[in-house]
Amino acid sequence: MREIHVIGIGAGDPEQLTLQAVRALRGTDVFFLLDKGEEKSDLTRLRLDILGAHLPEGSYRVVEARDPERDRRAGGTAYSPAVGDWRSARAGIYERMIVEELGDDETGAFLVWGDPALYDSTIGILDEVLARGAVSFAYDVVPGVSSVSALVARHRTGLNRVARPVQITTGRRLAEGFPEGVDDVVVMLDAHQSFRHYADEDIDIYWGAYIGTPDEILVSGPLAEAGPEIERVRAQARERKGWIMDTYLLRRNPGER
Amino acid sequence: MREIHVIGIGAGDPEQLTLQAVRALRGTDVFFLLDKGEEKSDLTRLRLDILGAHLPEGSYRVVEARDPERDRRAGGTAYSPAVGDWRSARAGIYERMIVEELGDDETGAFLVWGDPALYDSTIGILDEVLARGAVSFAYDVVPGVSSVSALVARHRTGLNRVARPVQITTGRRLAEGFPEGVDDVVVMLDAHQSFRHYADEDIDIYWGAYIGTPDEILVSGPLAEAGPEIERVRAQARERKGWIMDTYLLRRNPGER
Repeated sequence: MREIHVIGIGAGDPEQLTLQAVRALRGTDVFFLLDKGEEKSDLTRLRLDILGAHLPEGSYRVVEARDPERDRRAGGTAYSPAVGDWRSARAGIYERMIVEELGDDETGAFLVWGDPALYDSTIGILDEVLARGAVSFAYDVVPGVSSVSALVARHRTGLNRVARPVQITTGRRLAEGFPEGVDDVVVMLDAHQSFRHYADEDIDIYWGAYIGTPDEILVSGPLAEAGPEIERVRAQARERKGWIMDTYLLRRNPGER
Repeated sequence: MREIHVIGIGAGDPEQLTLQAVRALRGTDVFFLLDKGEEKSDLTRLRLDILGAHLPEGSYRVVEARDPERDRRAGGTAYSPAVGDWRSARAGIYERMIVEELGDDETGAFLVWGDPALYDSTIGILDEVLARGAVSFAYDVVPGVSSVSALVARHRTGLNRVARPVQITTGRRLAEGFPEGVDDVVVMLDAHQSFRHYADEDIDIYWGAYIGTPDEILVSGPLAEAGPEIERVRAQARERKGWIMDTYLLRRNPGER
């Protein structure tokens, strides 16, 4: 029986690997790395470095594939269907890789930045590959330190305030309105700095990019002041490196409401 | 200058420690363990086992203290003030422990289950100790695998559905109403199985107790069927061990709404 590990490898700092993740790496014959294009080659190299640091040379194989591009032309309402198409395309690639590259008694692994539970499609795609029925395998998930946990640790704050909720959402949703019923909101996948819509409100922001790596940048403070600063350093960093991975927490002061 | 690490040690499985956490443990002279009473002595022993597994005997000291009891008589609206009083009492204990037990050039550590960012008061209490001004120290936070990540990893599902938000909240809040604007809700600190209020709705539950330990229990399914099963096994487990730590994800099917 083929086995597959979906391994959360932390938010960027190679030391954020868990002992469980290291054990799973050491039990893996074939690593599947999906590359999203040249701008992400830094991330592929970082994963290869992690393998090199923990595994004897020659003890594993690496299979690289090009990730199909998500259809970026799809507008707001079409987002989910576009993701669906892209997920199917990806499922086809995963299926081929597993059938062609993983022996019947071998163990494969997908390395996921942060935690596989947050805005990552690997689990959903593997379920889709299994549902197609062309190949069978057992899989498990090794949880990781999420970029959300890493962000607030670096800012030395919590995600929630005492006895209160926190919501994790996307930049696209934040642009549509501040989530109801919560004052603490973590925003991921925000290419458009949607926090700008709330610059007039009494909100603190805790922002970070490339968290846990030598390029890490942290900015925090009242949104009215920190917001423009974040836009500036974010644009500079993106220009310099060619890509950016950033996340932030918005903490609204409920005041007298 | 005194230094303090706030170290997330994962949700219960000693292998969920990160390499960064192990390094921080090894750089620590004094561990502060707060015991919540006899029913939690299993958890104290588990932390001592983690220290024993990673550190040479005699290379560190352990300081144990009794956690002041939170005022459980406080009702719904009084919850926050009661927490405030309790936090002040705790700050006094932390301050005394740091002043009396940690040398000027030593490093101390607090070990936090899961991730220090989620429903844990250590960071807030250390900030309060610093604000009182009686003792100074530098501190950092080592993020950990949260019980939330561990829960969904064991169920091999994600926290959010594609491009959608997830909210993390308390049992008390869930009892007041299903959060607005989200269909995926993680519930922590629920002593009253508040999911019962939603048994009529089209909701799937992913529940787990003692996650990552040999006592782990997992139940999932449609709430109408899985809910009563969870109440049964939860009561049995709590009776058997004397305490329980559990968490769950509710996933509402939006249907035609």
